[in-house]
Amino acid sequence: MKSHTAYLTFHTKKRKDIIPITDQVERIIRESGIQEGLALVSSMHLTASVIIQDEESGLWRDIMEWAEQVAPERPTYHHHRTGEDNGDAHLKNLLMHLQVVIPITRGRFDAGPWQRLFYVEFDGQRDKRVIVKVIGE
Amino acid sequence: MKSHTAYLTFHTKKRKDIIPITDQVERIIRESGIQEGLALVSSMHLTASVIIQDEESGLWRDIMEWAEQVAPERPTYHHHRTGEDNGDAHLKNLLMHLQVVIPITRGRFDAGPWQRLFYVEFDGQRDKRVIVKVIGE
Amino acid sequence: MKSHTAYLTFHTKKRKDIIPITDQVERIIRESGIQEGLALVSSMHLTASVIIQDEESGLWRDIMEWAEQVAPERPTYHHHRTGEDNGDAHLKNLLMHLQVVIPITRGRFDAGPWQRLFYVEFDGQRDKRVIVKVIGE
Repeated sequence: MKSHTAYLTFHTKKRKDIIPITDQVERIIRESGIQEGLALVSSMHLTASVIIQDEESGLWRDIMEWAEQVAPERPTYHHHRTGEDNGDAHLKNLLMHLQVVIPITRGRFDAGPWQRLFYVEFDGQRDKRVIVKVIGE
Repeated sequence: MKSHTAYLTFHTKKRKDIIPITDQVERIIRESGIQEGLALVSSMHLTASVIIQDEESGLWRDIMEWAEQVAPERPTYHHHRTGEDNGDAHLKNLLMHLQVVIPITRGRFDAGPWQRLFYVEFDGQRDKRVIVKVIGE
Repeated sequence: MKSHTAYLTFHTKKRKDIIPITDQVERIIRESGIQEGLALVSSMHLTASVIIQDEESGLWRDIMEWAEQVAPERPTYHHHRTGEDNGDAHLKNLLMHLQVVIPITRGRFDAGPWQRLFYVEFDGQRDKRVIVKVIGE
């Protein structure tokens, strides 16, 4: 079994944003030399997600508006008594899950026709990381 | 390390539906010959999920009604400006996550007492695929 | 490739609760002897979740209150016609997902600065299990 580990760093200008990362993850898979296996692509922070969705800007707006409806920003989270103001971002991370596992077949992300990877930031404007861990042969 | 990859195809008569897939996934695990490892069971589309839940039709109705409440069908999604009408299905996929990873112990899905696998379709009536990727030894 | 499987059992006094499990999972990773790989940490029940979040009790209250808003307790779930009363717990499990996959690097959970593991119980007061399956080398 082989393994390969890489870290991506994001620093968004906006507090909330969606960033395509398929090309970066595919490059890491190629660097690993692994032909058959799995890759974990996971946020290392509690206020961001990694998702698989469609490369369509209207849909990205829908996703962010929906997250705001289901887990809204508001001042009254208990978490804010610690001095934080990002309670909603923790809940949005739970809503969309922090990670995906992707299949690698013949050295490539074995994706469906429209499947693309995205980093979804809910509390940015600072350095945040994603881990990509590839295992296989 | 060994690996084994298989694809399941679904074409539901109804637009939204829940389909048991445990038997098909267990057959793929047996075919792999893998005794100890992990299997990724993941939707290859952005408008369907793979979940682990209970084989109980009342619960299935609860799950679909809940998804409709949290991520309702409506004409006003930005995504619909592209000609699509399935914005809700993308959000339901995010709500329930697209995939599960299952443990394989002594050649079998190492499941809890009621854990069964389901394909959850939110925008069917066309061919859609699930990938099952097994790795281990 | 090596693999290692362990099971954790929880029996909460309260019906709903959040329990830190990072130390137990890290002990299992050390026992496995695996230096590079992945660990699946997954609920074996349909009414509990495993999540990665922050060790902060205010946030835990926010998480439980949010789950109650998005997937509330109520008597009218179809699932309750079977004699059950935990329809909400099944939906909360779907909301937060049942599992996480964690990266192992140099023999340790390769976590971000605040990432801790938690078992989230939505229908406790009875024995329930989590599986930890480690694979790698």
